Amino acid sequence: MNEVTLLGILAGTLTTISFAPQAVKSWRTRRTKDVSLGMFSILCTGVALWITYGVLTRDFPLILANSVTLALAFLILAMKIRYG
Amino acid sequence: MNEVTLLGILAGTLTTISFAPQAVKSWRTRRTKDVSLGMFSILCTGVALWITYGVLTRDFPLILANSVTLALAFLILAMKIRYG
Repeated sequence: MNEVTLLGILAGTLTTISFAPQAVKSWRTRRTKDVSLGMFSILCTGVALWITYGVLTRDFPLILANSVTLALAFLILAMKIRYG
Repeated sequence: MNEVTLLGILAGTLTTISFAPQAVKSWRTRRTKDVSLGMFSILCTGVALWITYGVLTRDFPLILANSVTLALAFLILAMKIRYG
């Protein structure tokens, strides 16, 4: 595996796990007033389409990364809807 | 252009523009208390690495989409640092 591939894996890992701190923060504080409902609605839709795209093109890394992102983003969206 | 490519473009457009509603909301309310500093710090780092990856692999759509994402995510990060 060359350096460029490793850079791509690192980039993908960071953008995927970046949603974890927001999920943890919202879970702990039960406050999501300043979080945008629009952002997480559009994001979940887009990420779900990325998973569909990954399935159609049989791109396993794309499916894996976006599945983790969707789980985290959907959790944040659910808390936003719950806590307002 | 086939349906699968169009699906990928739609997915990329949605995940990219999803950050706009959060930027607009934070800009208008000047409140970012419930927004995670960790999320936007890690996200900006990851997206900057995606742009670097795109430059190294000469992938123009990847550079374009991630540049828009970085501009929006960095704006949200700056407001989070400013407003607390």
